[in-house]
Amino acid sequence: MSRAGPLKLKIMLFCGEHTAMGPGKAELLEAIAAAGSISAGARAMGMSYRRAWLLVDTMNRSWTNPLVETSVGGGGRGGARLTPFGDQVLTAYRALEDHLMSSAAGGPFDVLAEGVLPSPRAQPLP
Amino acid sequence: MSRAGPLKLKIMLFCGEHTAMGPGKAELLEAIAAAGSISAGARAMGMSYRRAWLLVDTMNRSWTNPLVETSVGGGGRGGARLTPFGDQVLTAYRALEDHLMSSAAGGPFDVLAEGVLPSPRAQPLP
Repeated sequence: MSRAGPLKLKIMLFCGEHTAMGPGKAELLEAIAAAGSISAGARAMGMSYRRAWLLVDTMNRSWTNPLVETSVGGGGRGGARLTPFGDQVLTAYRALEDHLMSSAAGGPFDVLAEGVLPSPRAQPLP
Repeated sequence: MSRAGPLKLKIMLFCGEHTAMGPGKAELLEAIAAAGSISAGARAMGMSYRRAWLLVDTMNRSWTNPLVETSVGGGGRGGARLTPFGDQVLTAYRALEDHLMSSAAGGPFDVLAEGVLPSPRAQPLP
């Protein structure tokens, strides 16, 4: 989720009823790219290997091409990295977040930003 | 939540750690305005009166002015309606949704819209 001042945006791309890309999946892709494997990426996010694997599986079936490719190592779970297409999708998702956050300024957003308090009043006004 | 094609946007305005406006609260305001009371608005949304009341209370404490005003009727829970300020905030929120959805077209969104499948493949590509 992308946040600036009081505004938070959650951007999701759907493949049928499934989320093909969203805040959690984008973060997982970054973690896998940094860690070099699904298991290490999951660990870095405090996520179970099983859940990370399921998210990767959904992503790899939701796009014209896989986003993550795995290589079987000598023993166990092997390594994983983003495909060039996965890298392109992740970059476009982050760019869309930035684009929409900066598109918000002006117009209707300003009415909201001026009217919202920095923290709630203890009691409603009478 | 606002959806067009594969894109879904969830727009939230925060007041400190609380959601001052979001998809559920906007829908509740519309239901209260249509039904004329918090209890009838809640019922129309399949929401408990208690939950609706808490959401209204949070909203009324999160903005410079209350969004919902209640009148004590002859018996029981009385009526409720949006204040002019509440109406303005709701309108600005819906306008911001429309504005951001239409801002998405072009640029990074097109990479995503072209790459995402209409429904997931049964199996990942090899």
